[in-house]
This record gives sequence, C-alpha cells and structure tokens, in this order.
Amino acid sequence: MVTKADAIAKGIARGDRGAVAKAISVVENDQEAAKSLMRLLGAPGRAFVVGITGPPGTGKSTLVDRLIGAYREKGFKVAVVAVDPTSPITGGALLGDRVRMSEHSGDRAVFIRSMATRGWVGGLSAATSQAIRILDAAGYDLVFLETVGIGQSDIEVVGLSHAVVVVLMPGMGDEVQMSKAGLMEVGDVYVVNKSDLGGGDALIVSLLSMVRSSKTRSPAVLAVSALKGEGLDKLADALEKLRSKFEGGDREIKLRSVRGLVLDAAKGALMRRFSASSVLEADRLAAKVLEGKLTVEQAADKLVG
Amino acid sequence: MVTKADAIAKGIARGDRGAVAKAISVVENDQEAAKSLMRLLGAPGRAFVVGITGPPGTGKSTLVDRLIGAYREKGFKVAVVAVDPTSPITGGALLGDRVRMSEHSGDRAVFIRSMATRGWVGGLSAATSQAIRILDAAGYDLVFLETVGIGQSDIEVVGLSHAVVVVLMPGMGDEVQMSKAGLMEVGDVYVVNKSDLGGGDALIVSLLSMVRSSKTRSPAVLAVSALKGEGLDKLADALEKLRSKFEGGDREIKLRSVRGLVLDAAKGALMRRFSASSVLEADRLAAKVLEGKLTVEQAADKLVG
Repeated sequence: MVTKADAIAKGIARGDRGAVAKAISVVENDQEAAKSLMRLLGAPGRAFVVGITGPPGTGKSTLVDRLIGAYREKGFKVAVVAVDPTSPITGGALLGDRVRMSEHSGDRAVFIRSMATRGWVGGLSAATSQAIRILDAAGYDLVFLETVGIGQSDIEVVGLSHAVVVVLMPGMGDEVQMSKAGLMEVGDVYVVNKSDLGGGDALIVSLLSMVRSSKTRSPAVLAVSALKGEGLDKLADALEKLRSKFEGGDREIKLRSVRGLVLDAAKGALMRRFSASSVLEADRLAAKVLEGKLTVEQAADKLVG
Repeated sequence: MVTKADAIAKGIARGDRGAVAKAISVVENDQEAAKSLMRLLGAPGRAFVVGITGPPGTGKSTLVDRLIGAYREKGFKVAVVAVDPTSPITGGALLGDRVRMSEHSGDRAVFIRSMATRGWVGGLSAATSQAIRILDAAGYDLVFLETVGIGQSDIEVVGLSHAVVVVLMPGMGDEVQMSKAGLMEVGDVYVVNKSDLGGGDALIVSLLSMVRSSKTRSPAVLAVSALKGEGLDKLADALEKLRSKFEGGDREIKLRSVRGLVLDAAKGALMRRFSASSVLEADRLAAKVLEGKLTVEQAADKLVG
C-alpha cells in the first residue's frame, strides 16, 4: 500500500516543489506524521547549510537575496528557511511574507519558506531541522537558514549549519556587549552590512581585534552594503572557501550540521514520548502534590519514569 | 553539614529578599544546582499566580504596576516575574530594566524580577516555574507572570498561572486573527487597555461576541486605561473573584498552576538526563550517519536509549 508519506517522499526525491512544500507543512503541524516521513528520506549531508544570524534590522533578508542571486548565476538550486518567531498570541509573524519580499520568488530553482516557531518547547528545532533534511533530499545545493534576531532560534541555527554568517551593522553597541553574548564564538564570517553608515570602520576594527585575539578560530570580517551590492563578491568568496572544504569532505565541517540534526531528532523523540504518555498522568500527580503526598520533584520523576 | 542550598532555602522560608534573589539567579544559571535547591522547598500552591499576556505595546507593565498598588493596599506581598525574551545574539533584553520601571521598586513587600530566556530549549520554562516555586515558598501572596508578547514564552505562562489576563488595545487587528491564534481559549479576563483610543468600543463588542459564542467558558471583558487609572477597580474585582475561588480550594483552579510546575520539572529532568549523557555521544553517531551506517532516526533512538 502506498501511503501519503510514501507519495510525498517520492515527490521530494524527484525535487518536486509541491511535495517539498507539503512535507514542510507536515513537519510544522504534525510531529507524529513527520516521524514517518523522516524515516523515508535518504541520508542528509549533501546540501551546504549556511546560517545567517544577527540582530534585527541589520539587513539579513536583503543579504540572503543577494547571495541567492550569486549562487543562481553558478547554476545552484537554492533554498531559504526563514525562522520566524511568530507570536502565538497575536499570530503575527515578525518577518512578514518572506517569500514575496524576495526578488527570486518567481525562480523555480529557488525555494523560500518562512517557518513559524510554534507554541511548545521543542517545536521549532524539530521542524527546522526536518525542513533542512527535506530540502537536502530534494536536491537543493544550498540552504540558507535565516533568523530574525530575537530569541533562542538565533542560537539554534548555529548547531544546524555548516557555516555561520553573523550580520552586524554600525551603531549596534560596543564589542564588549557582543562578546558577552557569545557572538564571537559562533561566526565563520562576520559581515558589517550598511558599512557606508558612520561607524562602519570602527566596527570593522573592533571585530578584527576580537578575531585576532582568538587562538582557535580565524573567521573572516567583511564590509558589505547589500542594498548597493558592494562587497558581496568577497562574501561569496568566503562562503565558497567554506563550501569547498565541505565538498572536499572536511570531516569537522561535514559533521557540524548532521550532529545538530541527530540531536534535534533525539530531542524530538524524547518530547514525543513525554507528551504522548504523560499529560493526563500529570493531572493525577499534580493533585497528589496539592495534597502534600508528593513533592513536585517526586511527581516529575514519576512522570519521566 | 549546612550546604549553600540549605542556607538559601532557609532564607527563602524566612522571606528574606536576598535569598530569594540569589535563588532565582541559581535557577537561571545552573540547572544542576537548581535541582538540589528545589528539593528543599516546601509544597507549592499557596501563592496565587496571575499570567499577564498579550501583544507588545499594549501596556502590560503599566497595568501590572497598577495592580501591585491595588494589592499592596490590601496588605498583600506581591511579586512580579517578567519573562523577557533576551536575544542570545545581542544580549539585549526587550523589557529593559523592569525593576527600575516600576513605581513600587522601593517597596520591600514588592519583589520584581526580569528573567531572560536563555539559549537552549527547556531553559525558560524550567527557570520560570522554579522562580514561581521560590516566590511561593517565600510567602508572596500574589505572583504576576508578565510576558513581553513575542515568542513561545507567552503561551508557556498560561500553563503556570491560576488566572490569565489577556491585555489588548484598539487597532491591533481583527478578531479572526485573535481567534486563530488561540487567544480566545486562554484568558480568564480580557482587558482592552488604552480603551479611550478610537476603536476601543468596537474591540469590546467583538470580544464580547466571541466570549458569548463559547459554550465552555465565560471570561470577563473589561475596558481599562492603566495610565489614567480607569477601570482598574473592575479588573481588581474580576481577579478577586478568581482568587477567592482559589482560596476556597476550588480544585480545578488550584490544579492549574501545579500541573504546569510538575510538567516543567519533568521536562527539566528529561533535558538534564539528555544533555549530561549524550552530547559527546552525538558526535560519534553523527559520523555514522555521514558514513551511511545509520539513519538520523536510528542515531537519535540510540542517543535517547
């Protein structure tokens, strides 16, 4: 019997856009169905996954759009997953309609999708990493994981990416702040966008000095104006250097994303196990806590088993 | 031997503010230490926990400040936990210094604390629910859980609260949007703040019609101006009605928050178990996935055990 998941998986293997879109909707909305679907996909590790992160307003979407253009010229199939911390309260998405915002939305070899973070813990990372696996299986050469710059999704993309581009702009606060936030540990490329604004040079200088003080890493620091198209060739070169390592089978860079995919799948499995068996049981145990017969910890231990 | 956790727990039991502050820092920063500390606290369920949620910019902080005033007049000890989705990238908090923003910051019977959401999945809800237990144990009569209105923390507070106040304002979009976002299922009280702005009446009317169409629930709908102090008496009355049910031992309302505390403690236990044993192992398994010897799901299953 051919199930719905079988049909979708076959469509994905053919690179069918409709099947890809449907599959991403499945992983967004139904983790039980997602589990069946994921088992039908091949091994990941073909697509090069680039995380694009940084504070809101630094022009990440424009930059990604320019990079899509550069990689389309090389004949690559390119996908964008925009991780959007939709408010579960208003239902509003911060990014708006990312698809319509792109000048490449009419190109059949470009797939752009916003993924909303949904309510409960574990939801985002499960669906995001499943979307990467779907796009990988569908034959996209490059997947950009674009964040909004608010909340934990910004850190989560780091673990799923082969390369991380941190996008900054002048006037965002001093380097101590950035350093404290762990920003200096995650980027392979630091881009100062809108670098023609006042303060661009100072930001570049302080980024370079931070980079030089690191004994273990040597990320690139680049001045760019995505809007004017300046400095993009250097950014593309920096990414190509990383991508050729990846293509060349560099073990550390290859492992990066797959390790994140495995961890997310494991977290998803834990969470599924937990929610399936335990939510009703929680009521009974909470009542015992109220009656003073169990502590919260004892109840939790019973729930986890 | 008296451990550090023992000393903090004793301070909490005396209602010592310094011990409370220290304990909340522990649960924010060190889940292993938090676990020991939590085991020393008594049973929860004494403090009445009120979730204050709704979109950004609706004036939740001002409203909470007014409510603090109302409950201080009754002689209550009041605490506020402001759940702030700090960006892990910029390190910046969206709420700013919530403590300094309050007119009650000098009152020794009022405890206000911003809690940042930290990086990884599970972090927020674990620390937030632990903070509630700390404040409960320290003898606060009321705990306001205030959200910023962006991201999953807004939904998470619902599960931890005995009563939920949804704060809206005119001009926020139509009721269909709100209904889709699940907003109509979570509130015990709907407050239209800044109700003197144009569109306030229309919003009240559509909220009332939504409320009436529900067969299972009958939340209150109130027009308020927190800034001008209008309508606050009605809001305080609505909350008092719910609090008196709680004080009267209404089982359903009593269970609400404790169920959330138990679920969060269980999730925390799962996540601790997972991160302690598995992150290194994930490397080894990810390598096998890359070699095609395991699927992502098989690797995840091995990791979860």
